[in-house]
Order: sequence, then structure tokens, then C-alpha cells
Amino acid sequence: MEKYSARLSKIWDWMEEEGISLLMLEDTESRRDQNIRYLTGHPGDALLFLYADNSKSDRKAILAAWDLNLAKLYAAQAPVMLAAYNDFGRQPSKAIAAVAQKLNISAGAKIEIPAVTPYPLFLEYVGELSDFDILCRDKGAAVELQKLRTVKDEEEIAIMRKAASITNELIDLLEENVRSGKLKTETDAALFIETESRKRGCEGTSFETLAAGPERSFAIHAFPAWTGSPFGVQGLSILDFGVKYHGYCTDVTLTFARDLNPKQEKLVNLVEKASKLAVPMSHNGTNAREIAEAVDALFAKSKKQMPHGLGHGIGLQEHEYPILRSRAGSSDNRPEWILETGMIFTIEPGLYDPVLGGCRLENDILITENGYDILTTARIIRL
Amino acid sequence: MEKYSARLSKIWDWMEEEGISLLMLEDTESRRDQNIRYLTGHPGDALLFLYADNSKSDRKAILAAWDLNLAKLYAAQAPVMLAAYNDFGRQPSKAIAAVAQKLNISAGAKIEIPAVTPYPLFLEYVGELSDFDILCRDKGAAVELQKLRTVKDEEEIAIMRKAASITNELIDLLEENVRSGKLKTETDAALFIETESRKRGCEGTSFETLAAGPERSFAIHAFPAWTGSPFGVQGLSILDFGVKYHGYCTDVTLTFARDLNPKQEKLVNLVEKASKLAVPMSHNGTNAREIAEAVDALFAKSKKQMPHGLGHGIGLQEHEYPILRSRAGSSDNRPEWILETGMIFTIEPGLYDPVLGGCRLENDILITENGYDILTTARIIRL
Repeated sequence: MEKYSARLSKIWDWMEEEGISLLMLEDTESRRDQNIRYLTGHPGDALLFLYADNSKSDRKAILAAWDLNLAKLYAAQAPVMLAAYNDFGRQPSKAIAAVAQKLNISAGAKIEIPAVTPYPLFLEYVGELSDFDILCRDKGAAVELQKLRTVKDEEEIAIMRKAASITNELIDLLEENVRSGKLKTETDAALFIETESRKRGCEGTSFETLAAGPERSFAIHAFPAWTGSPFGVQGLSILDFGVKYHGYCTDVTLTFARDLNPKQEKLVNLVEKASKLAVPMSHNGTNAREIAEAVDALFAKSKKQMPHGLGHGIGLQEHEYPILRSRAGSSDNRPEWILETGMIFTIEPGLYDPVLGGCRLENDILITENGYDILTTARIIRL
Repeated sequence: MEKYSARLSKIWDWMEEEGISLLMLEDTESRRDQNIRYLTGHPGDALLFLYADNSKSDRKAILAAWDLNLAKLYAAQAPVMLAAYNDFGRQPSKAIAAVAQKLNISAGAKIEIPAVTPYPLFLEYVGELSDFDILCRDKGAAVELQKLRTVKDEEEIAIMRKAASITNELIDLLEENVRSGKLKTETDAALFIETESRKRGCEGTSFETLAAGPERSFAIHAFPAWTGSPFGVQGLSILDFGVKYHGYCTDVTLTFARDLNPKQEKLVNLVEKASKLAVPMSHNGTNAREIAEAVDALFAKSKKQMPHGLGHGIGLQEHEYPILRSRAGSSDNRPEWILETGMIFTIEPGLYDPVLGGCRLENDILITENGYDILTTARIIRL
């Protein structure tokens, strides 16, 4: 398909600007990277080598796949040469050296390896590629690929809208079946999602569904993810799930509320209010941090604090960029995120209390030219 | 519980031998590490700081958890001090600097950080901890913890036996229900495992079940993991699954065979033969590579080649050490693994063909004082 050529071309262009001769991406059990799927269609367990030589107008992509049969199917539409990862002794540092030699890359050329490369492995690369200038950096290809993926193209937006519409069907069915008493436990709810999402053509869920009845909803991410405990009974029950459709992930959280005491009622109202405050702030040009700070300020007025960020991008992964987070919660030194048309992200205010339980409300937002679309219909469901 | 103190003591002893003042472990979304669960009981999203000062007979463990409420529950039995990860600005490099200061660690002391630390993050640590000697190495704490975890203690073996007995119940039920036609699709089989494992007290499955009917079994790891495609119909269907019980994982693969042609029959017989050859070689003192090489040689006689390793350790993770792999398939420069009493690992010969489909037979083996126990009852099921 044209899309893989278009995406690869952008990266090759960027490589030429940066003077990078060879770029390696790695998707293995130790270090997952959806960029290989984004650029080639191949779903995983592979190395991808991108080569660009401006002077010779030469560009190549070599996909070294663990499972060549799978790669022949899934990367069929991408302009890549296929190789068997096993032919390189299953060592990325040996593989890249072999590729550099085969492509006849000149000594001193720049070769970029993944920013997540562990330091001991980095030393191996330096050993194997001693003739070259090795780049391993946070702000290199990783950021360039993030930027590309953060703004979705038309095809991606169409897939995300379809994934959201399936999610919304499930939300309605979940409400109906919890109300009717058909879904009684966390397990009931989680298995319902597994089954119904696949009936509707999804690859699966975006992540392990978190279903936490009133006894366990105090945790931000319940552990275990779901059990046989009662769900939707008196108190606060949280259901955090998403579906994966043609590789693209939704991510929503419902809270089911039954027979709340006044303190629980207050918690729920505050979370709803935070959602109503934050979502309409989502506009092209807005600094994501400002939205998170507005929610922090709202909670602070009631002496509450949210123990996690306000939201995150979604796409081929359930957690992508942009990050919606206040300064206080910043866990890295990346630049701030300014919202742009085509970005899709969650807004998910939540409050948790060891006694009252927890409440989170999470929806998926698309930035449009004139404002925003709320793609999903997650809500507080009062039983 | 005593077990956490015992495990921590072994690491503190090792730190003193190595002259390491502070050791940090990290379990976050970017870099998962079950060692924190192994040492404290806390299931995830945390940093663990271990401090040992021989001269003062002083040992401390600080668990900085993302979800303090969850940590209070799960790490209650471990001799650790709890802290909120958020209080450290959610940055591991800032957190470790704050801890080093608080513990008054002297300049020049050795501080070890995780071997999987990405190179750019390594540079951040070096910046924050410029007064100290930073260790980031493959053969340090990571190997020490692997060694500890590779040999299971009595409690762990009892849990693994229970997990295996649940797995075996499921294997029998799966056979029964595929034979009777009650389980017709990949989805049916996968959801059956999800439901029945939890009914029997499991936390969940060890990994996403791989259910691949004859159309998709050619892939080593089918993608997507399961779909609505027919399962157990004419040809070869693969079912690779495991259950997680009190944190411990089993991992088995069944192949369902129906109305095979002679070439498929030959493939299946060869895989069965490989299993029968390899399992009895599992003894205290055996070099794991030799078992893998024996299977390679068997397949080579029929001009077949296995595209993956022969097996791997199991425990808190579905893939641990030891690795059973021939030289040709080696993907790292770690030392070879000599089997020891108390090790538990899979033996999983498999062959795959784009036309015939795939066949894998995987069981879990415990090395005992006098030989081995086959904990699981996976088999080729001829329908």
C-alpha cells in the first residue's frame, strides 16, 4: 500500500537531512516497538534496517523477521526486502554489522540504533561497529517517529472511529447487562469484552482489561486485573478497557456506582466535573500541560489529588504521545506537547481512596480543525 | 513472610561481597522486572532500593511504589520501608539521587542500576550521581537474581505443581470439548481457558493464549493471537497457553491433528519423537545446549529445522532462565546453562510449514535429585 511507502519516505528524508546512513529499529520480546508495524505492516519480532544514501539516490529497507512466513504475509505491501533474523545469529549487534558490510557503508558514516538500547548492549554495538559513528539518543529517530505517529492520517482516523464505535457498542451492552444482573462479577465483565470485541472483528483488547469491583477499585490499576469478585454491587466499580481494531487501540474507563454514601457521591461528582472541564479545553494549539493543571487545580480545591497523569495518546499502542500531564507529575525531560489537528488521546481524571474506593472516567478525544470530537461514550453509570 | 527476608538477605550478602552500597531495581511500564515481586511481594510499578553497609551492619530496603495503597497490601510481609514514587518527581534518576543523599552514602561508593537501563538514561544517572561509581552491567545483580530465581525453593515448587495440575485439568477439558464439538473456533478455545483458569483460582493466563487453527498454525507465534477461525478441523491446530497461579506461570502447547495427509503425519511424528528424545535427557548436571543439539540433529536427519529455541525456564515470568538452545540459535553471550535440581523449564520442539501447517509439543519439566518430573500432560491430540 501507498501508506507504507509514504511513511518510509518521510523517515528516509529525515535521515538524509540528519546525514544518517543506516537506522535500525528493533521489535523483540525484550524491547517492543510498534514502529516496525507502522512502517511495514509486519506485526512483530523483527529488526528493520533503513538505508539512505543521498549522493547515490539510494534507499533501502531490510526487514529481518523471526518468522519469515508471517512477514511475507504482513509486509507484502511495503517496499522492503525480507531476510531471516536467524541468519544473523539472532544477535542485533551482529546483524547490524552484517548489514552495514553488505550495503558497503563507508567508514565514519552515522548509524543510529534504538534509544532504548541498554547500556551494556550499546557497548556491544560500539564494539561491532567500531568504524562508524554510533548514535543512540532520546531525541533522534525515536522522536521523529513519535511525531509522525502522534498526528494520525485519514486512514488511521477512519480506523480509530470504527474502533471507537465498537467500543461504544460494548459500553452500551455492558451497561445493559450489568443493570440486568447478567454480568455479576469482574470475570463476567472482562470475558464479555473479550468475546464481544472479537465478534465485531477486533484483533483483541488493547491491554488486559482492568475490572475492579468495590473491594478493589481503590487501586489505580487493580491487581490482579480481574477476579471472581462481585462487580457493580454497592459502592464503586471500575472497568478500564479498550479494543484493538486493525492494530489501533481505544482506551476507556467506566465507573459503575450503586447506593453511594455522601462521600462517595462527592468523589464521583468531582471526577465528572473534571472531565467536563478538561475535554472542552482540547483544541489545536493548546498546551497539554495546561489542561492537566486545570484538573489538578479543581481537585486541589477539594483537597484531593490525582495520582496519575490526565491522559495520553493512543494509536498502535495503548500509550503513546502526546502526554497530558502537569509539571508536578512529569517523569521525563521531553518537550511539552502542543495539541494538533489529528492527535487522538485519552482524558481520564480519577480519584482513589482506600476506604471509599476509586472512580475514573476516561474517553478518547480527536483534535479536529475546529475543535474536538469525543470519539467514545464512557460515563459514570449509576445503578 | 520469612521468604522475603531470606531472599533479600541473599542479595544483601552478595552486595557486601561485591562492595555495592546501593542497588536499584525498576519495574515500570517501559521496563518490567518481576524481581521486585520476587523480593517483596509487590506486583509492580515501583522502584526498589537495597542498601547495605558492611561496616555499620546496616541493611535497608526502600520500596517506592506508584500505588502506595496496593504496596501496603502486597508488600506487607517484606521488611521494606514504603515510599510514594510520586514524591520523587516520577524520575528514577532523581529518585536514586534523593535516596543516596538520605542514606548518606559516601562519595565514591558503588551504586548499581538495572542492566536494561537505556544508554540515554544511563547518561542521566551518571549526571545525577556524579559523586559515585555507577555500575550498569549484564553480569551483575541481574545475573545474581536470575541465579536465585532459576532454582526454585520448596514453596515455589509446590505452587508450580499446583499451577501444573490446573493446567492439566484444562488440557483434559480442552480435549474433551474440542472432540465433542463444543469448542469450534480459536476464540472458543481461548475464552474457555480464560474462564476455567480463573474458576480454579488463577490470577489469569501466563501470556496471551495462542490459538491457531490449520489456516494459521504455520506461524511460530500466530498473529493475531486468536480469531474466529475454525479450530480442530482438518489439518494441524496449535494451542499454546499457560496459567498464572500465585504469580507463577506454566507454559504448554498442544497440537490437535485431524485427517492428516502423509506429510503432515510425518511432521507430527517427528515432533513427538523430538519430545521423547529431549525430555529424558533432563538431568542435574546436563548442559542444556546438548539437549537442544540432540533435537537439532534429529530434525536435520529429516532435513527439517526448528526456527526457535528448544525451551526456557518458567516461574514468575513466562520466559526465564535456563535457556535450552543450540549454539546456532544463541542470541546472547551469556554462559551456558547446566541443569540443576529445582530448575523448571519447558521443552517445546516444533516444526512449521507454510503449506502443511505447524506442530509444537510443549511440556514443563522439573529437575529433581534423581532425574526429572514432567509436570504437565500436553500431547498431540489426534481427533
